Amino acid sequence: MILTVTLNAALDVTYRVSALVPGTTHRVTDVAERAGGKGVNVARVLHALGEPVVATGLAGGACGARIRSLLADEGVPEAFIPVAAESRRTVVVAEPAAATGLWEPGPTVTPDEWAIFLGRFADLARDARVVVLSGSLPPGVPVGAYRALIETVHGAGARAVLDSSGAPLRHGLGARPDLVKPNAEELAGLAGRPLPRPAMAVDAVRALTARTVVASFGPEGLLAVSEQGSWHAFLPDPIAGNPTGAGDACVAALARGIVHNQPWADRLTDAVALSAAAVRQPVAGSVDLTEYRRLRRDVTIKEL
Amino acid sequence: MILTVTLNAALDVTYRVSALVPGTTHRVTDVAERAGGKGVNVARVLHALGEPVVATGLAGGACGARIRSLLADEGVPEAFIPVAAESRRTVVVAEPAAATGLWEPGPTVTPDEWAIFLGRFADLARDARVVVLSGSLPPGVPVGAYRALIETVHGAGARAVLDSSGAPLRHGLGARPDLVKPNAEELAGLAGRPLPRPAMAVDAVRALTARTVVASFGPEGLLAVSEQGSWHAFLPDPIAGNPTGAGDACVAALARGIVHNQPWADRLTDAVALSAAAVRQPVAGSVDLTEYRRLRRDVTIKEL
Repeated sequence: MILTVTLNAALDVTYRVSALVPGTTHRVTDVAERAGGKGVNVARVLHALGEPVVATGLAGGACGARIRSLLADEGVPEAFIPVAAESRRTVVVAEPAAATGLWEPGPTVTPDEWAIFLGRFADLARDARVVVLSGSLPPGVPVGAYRALIETVHGAGARAVLDSSGAPLRHGLGARPDLVKPNAEELAGLAGRPLPRPAMAVDAVRALTARTVVASFGPEGLLAVSEQGSWHAFLPDPIAGNPTGAGDACVAALARGIVHNQPWADRLTDAVALSAAAVRQPVAGSVDLTEYRRLRRDVTIKEL
Repeated sequence: MILTVTLNAALDVTYRVSALVPGTTHRVTDVAERAGGKGVNVARVLHALGEPVVATGLAGGACGARIRSLLADEGVPEAFIPVAAESRRTVVVAEPAAATGLWEPGPTVTPDEWAIFLGRFADLARDARVVVLSGSLPPGVPVGAYRALIETVHGAGARAVLDSSGAPLRHGLGARPDLVKPNAEELAGLAGRPLPRPAMAVDAVRALTARTVVASFGPEGLLAVSEQGSWHAFLPDPIAGNPTGAGDACVAALARGIVHNQPWADRLTDAVALSAAAVRQPVAGSVDLTEYRRLRRDVTIKEL
């Protein structure tokens, strides 16, 4: 089983309007709600692939209850731990050619609630082969949270995949995750200099304290550095669409690759094709599996 | 006891931002949540005045649960009936000098849920002296809902106050409510011609099939027509502020006036002063009672 962790889960709310006019009132008739947060998107993709998965994390108040009920409606197994404060909403006002985001900060988690989560997480990690830790931390969760969780994962004999940014990512690297998936921006933040293209980033990637690193460069593809070798995996032509959620689809493929001990060429082919299939979908965390299988044939892998 | 009915209750969400820029993402750190809907605002004002009140209506899903828990936090007694679909959010993006509204339509109510509400409402109406019916109807509730509820109120020996608009208001008038409170716009809709000032509206008000009518004209004050006489009640100077919720404060004063059988001069003085005190507050459904008592002294009442 793969366990995904979303400490700052979200209720993604999309308002479709013909035009957003500041200073006026809009009667929104087209409202879509979805469970969100990076780890939730990873779980949704794994579930679509038929891979056994459980989504955990912190779900706050009525908004958290709604997130859990939406996951249940989708059939994604979840073991979220409730907290008292309200989980965040991420509101997107979607016009035909533009999207405006309003992102809440997330619930303030109390020390007692965090302690309860740590206990429950240790139990869940014992049943997992791979644990995926994704996204930002809500207020109140210690900045070293991912480091502590990765140590628990390793203590339980499982593998840890980390996909975060900023200070939570830097602290998490201290526990030497089995795989880390920065994007170009996060990698630049860690390296302290811009690294917009895979070929420029090999040294920076090798410097990270993780067993393997798969860095994502949007339409330029993936740079993978492991003990077995280094590769650049990409599609010949860029895919048009919505890049939100492409990184989560990539992480889903990589976590599945660890579970099934796939050869690296297969893992990277899946990761590039699933990311691209996610870009083609209008909402984050969805993939069209037919598209994914078709795109697999177009992936090029170069050993570096 | 006064019973307020909010069939399309709302979770009022306010995002305070320095500037709303369409096409970009805003990290909103200042999020305020509040139980909303016109009847909820009436209940909040009555509760602040120390008047026994119960707020009922339909509360849907996790959003409805949040509305009920926020009312409980405020100490406002509530007897909302749950429905499965999600209650609406009314999102306001507040910039320093402008407000942008995003209003969801509300839950779709099933015939079974409506039947359950009707049964519970009949029980609640038996304990009420006045029942206040406010606002719009959510999808699925029959357009004649207010007519049916007013008939139940009268059957229980209580008085009915109706504050709605459009077709629900027109249908509700068919049951001859004891008091109806249109604003200038609603009155114009009923009369089929613009009636921007109280003096122009007396005939249109007399034509309504309600025992008494109190029409609100914003800063121009109230026009009251009852079997005891007709009056124009107003403040000498307009009050600057947020007019949302002023009508609900007015209705709260009028409902209290019926319960205590106050002379009309007192009812209208209270209604004008409470409305103005609500305008002075930044959020709907709040009044500053000190301000209200001070403003009472400035109200002028002219018999027509």
